[in-house]
Amino acid sequence: MSPHEHITAFGTINGELSVGGMPLSRLAARVGSTPFFAYDRGLLDARIALLRSLLPSRIELSYAMKANPMPAVVQHLAPLVDRIDVASAGEMQHALDTVIRPDRVSFAGPGKTPAEIRQAVAAGIIVEVESTTELRRVIAAGDELGLAPHVAVRVNPDFAVKGSGMRMGGGPQQFGIDAEQVPAVLAEFARDIDVLGFHVFAGSQNLNADIIAEAQTRTVDLVSDLADHLPSPLRYLNLGGGFGIPYTDRDRPLDLAPVAENLGRLVDGPIAERFPEASPVIELGRFIVAECGVYVTRVVDRKVSRGRTFVVVDGGMHHQLAASGNFGQAIRRNYPLAVGTRATDAGDEEMSVVGCLCTPLDLLGDGVSLPVDAGIDDLIVIFQQGAYGLTASPTAFLGHPAPAEVLV
Amino acid sequence: MSPHEHITAFGTINGELSVGGMPLSRLAARVGSTPFFAYDRGLLDARIALLRSLLPSRIELSYAMKANPMPAVVQHLAPLVDRIDVASAGEMQHALDTVIRPDRVSFAGPGKTPAEIRQAVAAGIIVEVESTTELRRVIAAGDELGLAPHVAVRVNPDFAVKGSGMRMGGGPQQFGIDAEQVPAVLAEFARDIDVLGFHVFAGSQNLNADIIAEAQTRTVDLVSDLADHLPSPLRYLNLGGGFGIPYTDRDRPLDLAPVAENLGRLVDGPIAERFPEASPVIELGRFIVAECGVYVTRVVDRKVSRGRTFVVVDGGMHHQLAASGNFGQAIRRNYPLAVGTRATDAGDEEMSVVGCLCTPLDLLGDGVSLPVDAGIDDLIVIFQQGAYGLTASPTAFLGHPAPAEVLV
Repeated sequence: MSPHEHITAFGTINGELSVGGMPLSRLAARVGSTPFFAYDRGLLDARIALLRSLLPSRIELSYAMKANPMPAVVQHLAPLVDRIDVASAGEMQHALDTVIRPDRVSFAGPGKTPAEIRQAVAAGIIVEVESTTELRRVIAAGDELGLAPHVAVRVNPDFAVKGSGMRMGGGPQQFGIDAEQVPAVLAEFARDIDVLGFHVFAGSQNLNADIIAEAQTRTVDLVSDLADHLPSPLRYLNLGGGFGIPYTDRDRPLDLAPVAENLGRLVDGPIAERFPEASPVIELGRFIVAECGVYVTRVVDRKVSRGRTFVVVDGGMHHQLAASGNFGQAIRRNYPLAVGTRATDAGDEEMSVVGCLCTPLDLLGDGVSLPVDAGIDDLIVIFQQGAYGLTASPTAFLGHPAPAEVLV
Repeated sequence: MSPHEHITAFGTINGELSVGGMPLSRLAARVGSTPFFAYDRGLLDARIALLRSLLPSRIELSYAMKANPMPAVVQHLAPLVDRIDVASAGEMQHALDTVIRPDRVSFAGPGKTPAEIRQAVAAGIIVEVESTTELRRVIAAGDELGLAPHVAVRVNPDFAVKGSGMRMGGGPQQFGIDAEQVPAVLAEFARDIDVLGFHVFAGSQNLNADIIAEAQTRTVDLVSDLADHLPSPLRYLNLGGGFGIPYTDRDRPLDLAPVAENLGRLVDGPIAERFPEASPVIELGRFIVAECGVYVTRVVDRKVSRGRTFVVVDGGMHHQLAASGNFGQAIRRNYPLAVGTRATDAGDEEMSVVGCLCTPLDLLGDGVSLPVDAGIDDLIVIFQQGAYGLTASPTAFLGHPAPAEVLV
C-alpha cells in the first residue's frame, strides 16, 4: 500500500492529515509535545465492524493486547470484542480492569513463572499451558488457592504454515505441547484438572488468505482428533489468528473474504457437528489495531550532505524499531510515511528521513519522495503504527523523553 | 571469545560465576528478583587501568555514557575519566550530577532540538554541532542567555573507515558537517562564535587495530587542514573511538597496543607541533563498559519438542535485543552465555535458550552446549552486557516488569 492510500484512510482537513477528526497540527498542539503516537477511535470501530460483517456470527473475537496495551485502547476495544488475550501478568491486570469477564481472558506464552500462574488462577482467567511443567503449576496453584483453574492446552501443530511473517508452529518449538504428545498428557492429568480445550496458533503476520484458511481447516482437523482424548466435551477452541497487514509498498492487503468463507464452512460443518459446546475463537492483535495508529514526529533539521538531503526528526528508532528495520526483518524496507502537515501535496523531492539518535541504524525513510522543501517544523507521519510501535521499541535508548500516546 | 574465557575474566567461587566478588546465586538473592543486569566495579576499574597504561598520557579519555547510562556506573566512572559525552539532554543531567566539570561534557548527535541546545548552553557544556542549523541555534541560545557557548564542529570526514560495525563517516551522512563545507561554515560564523575545535568519528564497534589507527592518522591530517580556518588556536580535538569488543566466537578482541603506539606517534608528532593547546580526546563507551556486565535470568521451564531441548528463561529479548540478533545484525549469532550457577561444569548437552516472550524472535542461545540437565531454577548468564543492554531493548514489550540493575 502507498502512503497516499493511508492518507485517504485517515482523511484530510485543509490539506493536513486528519486523526480522529482533528487536523494534525492541532492534534500536536493538543498533545503539547512531539513525538507522539495517535490512535483513531473511528478507525478502530470500523475495523471491528469490518470483521463482524465478514466473520460468521458464531466466531468469537479475542483481542491480543500485546499488539497495543495502551489502557485507553484496551478499554475502548473491550466492549467491542468477546475476549482479551494477555501475554503477562502485567497485561492481565489491564485486561481485568475492563468489562471483559475474567473467564474470557486468556494467558498464553512460554516461560510463565509460578508467581504469574498463581495470579492467573486467582483471577480465574484461562491459562493456556505451553508445557507439562506449566500444567503442574496450574494444578498446584488451584490446590493452594482452593480454586478450579480454567485451563487450555496450547498445541504445537504437526503442520507448518508457509508465508507467515513469523512461524510459530510445526517442527520443534518453544510454543505449546507437541500435538503427538497431547493425548498422553491429557491422560496423565485427567484426574487432576478439567482441560477446557485447545489453542493452536501456527504463525503471525500472514497476508495470504489461502494459507490462513488452510491452517484453520487443518487446525479443526487436528483438534477433532485431540478432542477424543478429553474427558468432557470441548468448550474452548482458539484457532489463533495471524492475519497480516501491509507494511511496505510490496505488501498487498489480506483478502478477508475467502478466510471468512472458509470459517463459515468450518463453523457450519465440523465445528457444529463435533463441538456443539464450543464457540470458536479468532485471536487478533495487529490486524485490529495496526492500521488505526500513526507515529508523529517533528522535523528539527534539514541538511544536504554530498548530494543527499536529510530530514532529521525529533523521534526515531527508539520509538520505531520496526520501521527502522531492526525488529526481525532480514531486509529493511521503508514503512509508509508522509508529511502530515502537507498531506495533499505531491511528493516531488527525494530525501532521507532520519531520527535523532546518534547511530546510522536510525533510518525511518530511505530516499522517499516528499513535498518540495519539506523541512523544519513539518510533522512527519509514519503509518501502520497502531501495533508493536511504542512497546516494541527501546524507548530509553539515549535518554530522550518517552513519547506521548493518545486515543482520539 | 568463548564463554569459558568470559567465565575466567569474572572468576568463580565454589563452582559459581563470581560478580563483584559474590557468587551468582547469592547476588540473585541480594537483588531479590530475576532477571537483572549486574556490572562489576573491579572490572570497570581494570578496564580504565588498561587504557591508561597503554594510551599516551596526553590522551584524554571521554566516557560516552550512551553505552551505559546507569547513574551508579556513570558516578563510578566519572573520577576515572577526563570527560563524559552525552547524547541527549536527559543524559546531560546525569553527567552534570557527577564530579566532571560542565566544560568537560560534550553533547553530540543529530536532531538536537532548540530546547535541548538551550539547556546545553545554559549548562556550559560543549555542543558538538552537526549542522549549520544547530550552530545558529547555539548562537541564538548564547545571545538569549547572555553566555558564550562552548562549541565544536562535528565533521563528516572525506574518508570512510572499513570494518566498522557501523559506519558513521564518509559519503553522505546525517552526522556532522561535510569536511569540504567546514571552511566556508567557519568563515560565515567567525564573528558570531568561537569554535573550540572538531570532533571526527568514523565508525563504531571496530575490531581491526590497523583500520582504527589509519582512521586516527587521517583524522589528524584532516583536522590539521581544517584548523587553518579557525580564527583561534585549536583547543578541542575529539578523535572519536570506535574500539570494538568481541561478541561472538568468531570475533577476536581488538589489539590495543598498535592503536596506542600510533596515537603516541600522533601525539608526539603532528598534534604536539600543530595543536599545542589541545588535548586530544578518545571517546569510548562500549569498550569501557561492555565486558564488565552480565545479564542474569532464571530458567523457568525446560521442555523437549520433537527432539530439540528448550530451556525457557524469565528474561528475553525485551532486555536483550542485541543478543537475540535483532539490533542491526544482518545474521544472528549467539552471544556468549553460560549456566552461572554451574560455571565450572563442562557443557555436554545441546539445548536452545529462549526467552519468555511469545515470539520466535526471542532466541538467546541457538543450539548451545550447556551442562547436562541444566534446567529449572538454574541462572543463565549472558556476557558482554555492560553496554547497549537494558537501554537498547524494548523493556515494555509484553508488559513484563523492568529488570533490576546493580553495580557490584
